[in-house]
Amino acid sequence: MAEQRVIRELKAFVDERDWAQFHSPENLAKSISIEAAELLECFQWGPDPSAERVTEELADVLTYCLLLAEKLDVDADQIVLNKLEQTRRKYPADQSRGRSTKYDQL
Amino acid sequence: MAEQRVIRELKAFVDERDWAQFHSPENLAKSISIEAAELLECFQWGPDPSAERVTEELADVLTYCLLLAEKLDVDADQIVLNKLEQTRRKYPADQSRGRSTKYDQL
Amino acid sequence: MAEQRVIRELKAFVDERDWAQFHSPENLAKSISIEAAELLECFQWGPDPSAERVTEELADVLTYCLLLAEKLDVDADQIVLNKLEQTRRKYPADQSRGRSTKYDQL
Amino acid sequence: MAEQRVIRELKAFVDERDWAQFHSPENLAKSISIEAAELLECFQWGPDPSAERVTEELADVLTYCLLLAEKLDVDADQIVLNKLEQTRRKYPADQSRGRSTKYDQL
Repeated sequence: MAEQRVIRELKAFVDERDWAQFHSPENLAKSISIEAAELLECFQWGPDPSAERVTEELADVLTYCLLLAEKLDVDADQIVLNKLEQTRRKYPADQSRGRSTKYDQL
Repeated sequence: MAEQRVIRELKAFVDERDWAQFHSPENLAKSISIEAAELLECFQWGPDPSAERVTEELADVLTYCLLLAEKLDVDADQIVLNKLEQTRRKYPADQSRGRSTKYDQL
Repeated sequence: MAEQRVIRELKAFVDERDWAQFHSPENLAKSISIEAAELLECFQWGPDPSAERVTEELADVLTYCLLLAEKLDVDADQIVLNKLEQTRRKYPADQSRGRSTKYDQL
Repeated sequence: MAEQRVIRELKAFVDERDWAQFHSPENLAKSISIEAAELLECFQWGPDPSAERVTEELADVLTYCLLLAEKLDVDADQIVLNKLEQTRRKYPADQSRGRSTKYDQL
């Protein structure tokens, strides 16, 4: 499985602090939204934030995503690949090439 | 590097549709927030959504996170591990065990 | 029009600081998401935040909403009433009473 | 009080459907984030959405904000004015004129 070392280290970090009690799927979903907004804040007034700051905020979003994947007992890479397969069908390359239109308006 | 197959497949998917033009770091950050809210919507009125739906929405958030990591030329697992190291220092295990208090209120 | 005093004071505040230049509809939309997440953060690990903190974060969301309404030249109260009229039709009282189901699953 | 008619109509709408049971402060905070992201989605791939669509999504955010204000028993306009007073002090006009820098970096 991918990112096994990361998941192991995250779980150890959480267990050392007895924080698993706070990590319901709902709390993790709220946390992902909260961190996603801190990432968005890098771009609040214009498009040129420091790469370092963006990277740090992205790491926070990913951290909570991996904790939620672990909680749901799914593999993060595998669910992305599964979803990609679905999305291929909704956005056939020949119809959607170069267009950002949402699939139900193609 | 972790998730190499996933990144390769995502890039191929994006290139086939000529969508890289839409994937500025800012647009990807907006997308992460948008998908994070769709994940949160699973829990909008209560805590028991179908695991299938939560998994699918989580996959969407992860997809945009991986695209942004690729755009910034960083490894998703590595930046999570780097951030974890920082967080260990802000949340010493002995002071934060069992407490959800934000670190500047410890 | 409702909230005329509030809009006037917000505009004066923005003009004194020459900040209107940053207030594109897109930047205001990003700001609303960012502040909404700070409000959500009051509830990140559990349901009992201080009313004072929630009120302050709600004020931030409302502030950016009013700035966007002003930018779009619409009246905040009127657009809420207009949308309510639409929603009455999507959620007929007799079919949706006591149910939180999204309207297309009624 | 401002927006009394709007609050009255929103309360009537909610009561007719027996939906107050779902409107805990936390669920309302989640709803505000969810709707804020739908507003942001108007700008996901570029800056020129239809004003009609933006107005409708803004109305949804405002609706939940007013429901939360009502739940907290505060006046939406008053809390914005109170917060503005605080913000005047953090962003003195002479120091912040024309600059979007966050106040602790002024």
